[in-house]
Amino acid sequence: MNKTRLENFSDSVMAVAITLLALDLKVDRIDGVPLQTQLWQQWPSFAAYVISFFIIGHVWISHHALFRRATGVDRVVLVYNLLLLLFVTAIPFSTATYADYAQRGGADARIAVIAYGVVMTGMSISFTLILRQLMRVGLFSIQLPPDERRKLLSKYSIGVLVYPIITLAGLIDAPIMLLLYVPVIAYYFGPGARVLGDEMELG
Amino acid sequence: MNKTRLENFSDSVMAVAITLLALDLKVDRIDGVPLQTQLWQQWPSFAAYVISFFIIGHVWISHHALFRRATGVDRVVLVYNLLLLLFVTAIPFSTATYADYAQRGGADARIAVIAYGVVMTGMSISFTLILRQLMRVGLFSIQLPPDERRKLLSKYSIGVLVYPIITLAGLIDAPIMLLLYVPVIAYYFGPGARVLGDEMELG
Amino acid sequence: MNKTRLENFSDSVMAVAITLLALDLKVDRIDGVPLQTQLWQQWPSFAAYVISFFIIGHVWISHHALFRRATGVDRVVLVYNLLLLLFVTAIPFSTATYADYAQRGGADARIAVIAYGVVMTGMSISFTLILRQLMRVGLFSIQLPPDERRKLLSKYSIGVLVYPIITLAGLIDAPIMLLLYVPVIAYYFGPGARVLGDEMELG
Amino acid sequence: MNKTRLENFSDSVMAVAITLLALDLKVDRIDGVPLQTQLWQQWPSFAAYVISFFIIGHVWISHHALFRRATGVDRVVLVYNLLLLLFVTAIPFSTATYADYAQRGGADARIAVIAYGVVMTGMSISFTLILRQLMRVGLFSIQLPPDERRKLLSKYSIGVLVYPIITLAGLIDAPIMLLLYVPVIAYYFGPGARVLGDEMELG
Repeated sequence: MNKTRLENFSDSVMAVAITLLALDLKVDRIDGVPLQTQLWQQWPSFAAYVISFFIIGHVWISHHALFRRATGVDRVVLVYNLLLLLFVTAIPFSTATYADYAQRGGADARIAVIAYGVVMTGMSISFTLILRQLMRVGLFSIQLPPDERRKLLSKYSIGVLVYPIITLAGLIDAPIMLLLYVPVIAYYFGPGARVLGDEMELG
Repeated sequence: MNKTRLENFSDSVMAVAITLLALDLKVDRIDGVPLQTQLWQQWPSFAAYVISFFIIGHVWISHHALFRRATGVDRVVLVYNLLLLLFVTAIPFSTATYADYAQRGGADARIAVIAYGVVMTGMSISFTLILRQLMRVGLFSIQLPPDERRKLLSKYSIGVLVYPIITLAGLIDAPIMLLLYVPVIAYYFGPGARVLGDEMELG
Repeated sequence: MNKTRLENFSDSVMAVAITLLALDLKVDRIDGVPLQTQLWQQWPSFAAYVISFFIIGHVWISHHALFRRATGVDRVVLVYNLLLLLFVTAIPFSTATYADYAQRGGADARIAVIAYGVVMTGMSISFTLILRQLMRVGLFSIQLPPDERRKLLSKYSIGVLVYPIITLAGLIDAPIMLLLYVPVIAYYFGPGARVLGDEMELG
Repeated sequence: MNKTRLENFSDSVMAVAITLLALDLKVDRIDGVPLQTQLWQQWPSFAAYVISFFIIGHVWISHHALFRRATGVDRVVLVYNLLLLLFVTAIPFSTATYADYAQRGGADARIAVIAYGVVMTGMSISFTLILRQLMRVGLFSIQLPPDERRKLLSKYSIGVLVYPIITLAGLIDAPIMLLLYVPVIAYYFGPGARVLGDEMELG
């Protein structure tokens, strides 16, 4: 397995997943209920759609940045990458579940928040596992002393910490969860994009 | 992020979105209602499918033409491009909503027309933002004096003006909206294809 | 627009369409009806799935063979190619409609057969239009005298003739339509693959 | 048809199929039934999703390993490859059917197990046919004496034997089927990855 084919396959999976998100945007054609009312009632669907869209967009960018630094892939990386894609493809499901149940409140809303959080956290853990494995077996192009390595790894794995915190906040109030993702996404597309050095060669 | 990978990812998303359009073509297997009647009643679905199909086809061609002229991409372009894809992936939803509600008339039809118009306009605005940003940071391969630049930008952004007008017309009569898209598409595949110069290298 | 990007986009659309075909394979979880019975009753779904799968597979191969011979694409080819993809993306719909209504007999079965035939014939006409245009504007790599040209064109356009005939047979008996596609597909993957010369560079 | 385009098309189909798997993860919004209960009751959906995900992941890796060794493709390989993709695209269907019926027990569970087994076995047979054909017509880059060839072929075709056995076990107890796939997948991503020699160039 060469790196390029892993990247192409992952790109395709992410492209399909990001497009399938929109399949949950659906009006139920309930007779007697005006369309406007139905759309208003579905605001969590739209909000969750936008958030999940940019999360997958960020995963795609991160994936690219990470593998640009890889000099090869071994079997373990391959498995971790499939694990990452497993969580990415589950995002439309967890997004739809959140959109359906967040407004109901109570235990249902909490379970939906947890489902969303588990998928996000699982994705973040998979990324960390890939980076750690690449570093461990010498397939990462930036050679760092162990100290620096651990630092980069923990910077990179910030989601493993942040996503559970957001999930906890969501347990108290489900809609707040989405709100808390906004600064996270802003960070990802702003200063966070520089975490792996200048690897993204932007601008 | 290099340009090629942005193009490939965007191409995949547009290819999936254009194919998902057809998912809304569905016969409901209502017993007692002849298939012919059901198909006739669904003419807005078919008409909207064809229009949206060529709109996405045009977006794909425009996207290619635009990025052929880009010498690189920065983080801002990346975000605007994700915004563009956000609207593109929403087209199957707005198309389905229009198809379901345009014939009902009244407030429902108007909301459906607005939903369709918002997605189209949002797409057009995203394109304009990308071109403006590329020009601003010097990543656009054609160097133009500020005057010419503004002219090209406004030519290119014609949809930002045209789509809201079509939407307004649709508020008066929903089916007219689709009809008005026909000359727009004819323009796009005809003379409009030349707006960015000879960049498309056709024929 | 260069040829490669047209090919890649078309490949993606065909890959998504061929995979979406399987979405119509669905068991309805009707309580009281054994799964075995449900699967038996759905045999037209499975048969239509296999036929449509190989038809799209053939379209993919033909598309590749055709564009390998193209030295470029012009705007007209671009539009005809979108037209081709429009019909390809409609195949899952016409397949599902056929699968649902073929067994009902009467007017419904006939309409379903016509829907399937229209999509197939439309696809074939689009192919013919692409080849004719490539020849007309000198973008076809094989230079032929007008006579030979017409001969190649008519050989290539065999579907324009065969599909309506199969459709007519289907009007008399819907399930026979699928049966008649079997030798057509066998021809496509056998001797028919040679129609455009050795362009496929197989074996 | 050159090899690269066959690989790209196959990759796209597999990427779409692996992502569509997640479409079956769906909560039915049944009023009165807590979300937690619904998710628990759907554990076969989640388990089957994970198993099928890694099976397709393995198919993708195998496909790549196999075609890296191919020096070309002939028409027969092309047909066998479409056959392989036919079974791959059917995996979401057989997975969903298994997930829905495995818990019901009785004849329904058995039919669901058989449907899953048929798709898996069909996939494995297609792979064997491709490898055999490549060897037979001299398009396989490793030249082996007939003896070694048969040995490699039988090692490679292990699924043709293993999948029916797992299916038989599933007839006795449906959930056991999924459990038995776990060591198979572990083998595929572990020692089994070496069956075609060092062809995967991992690590």
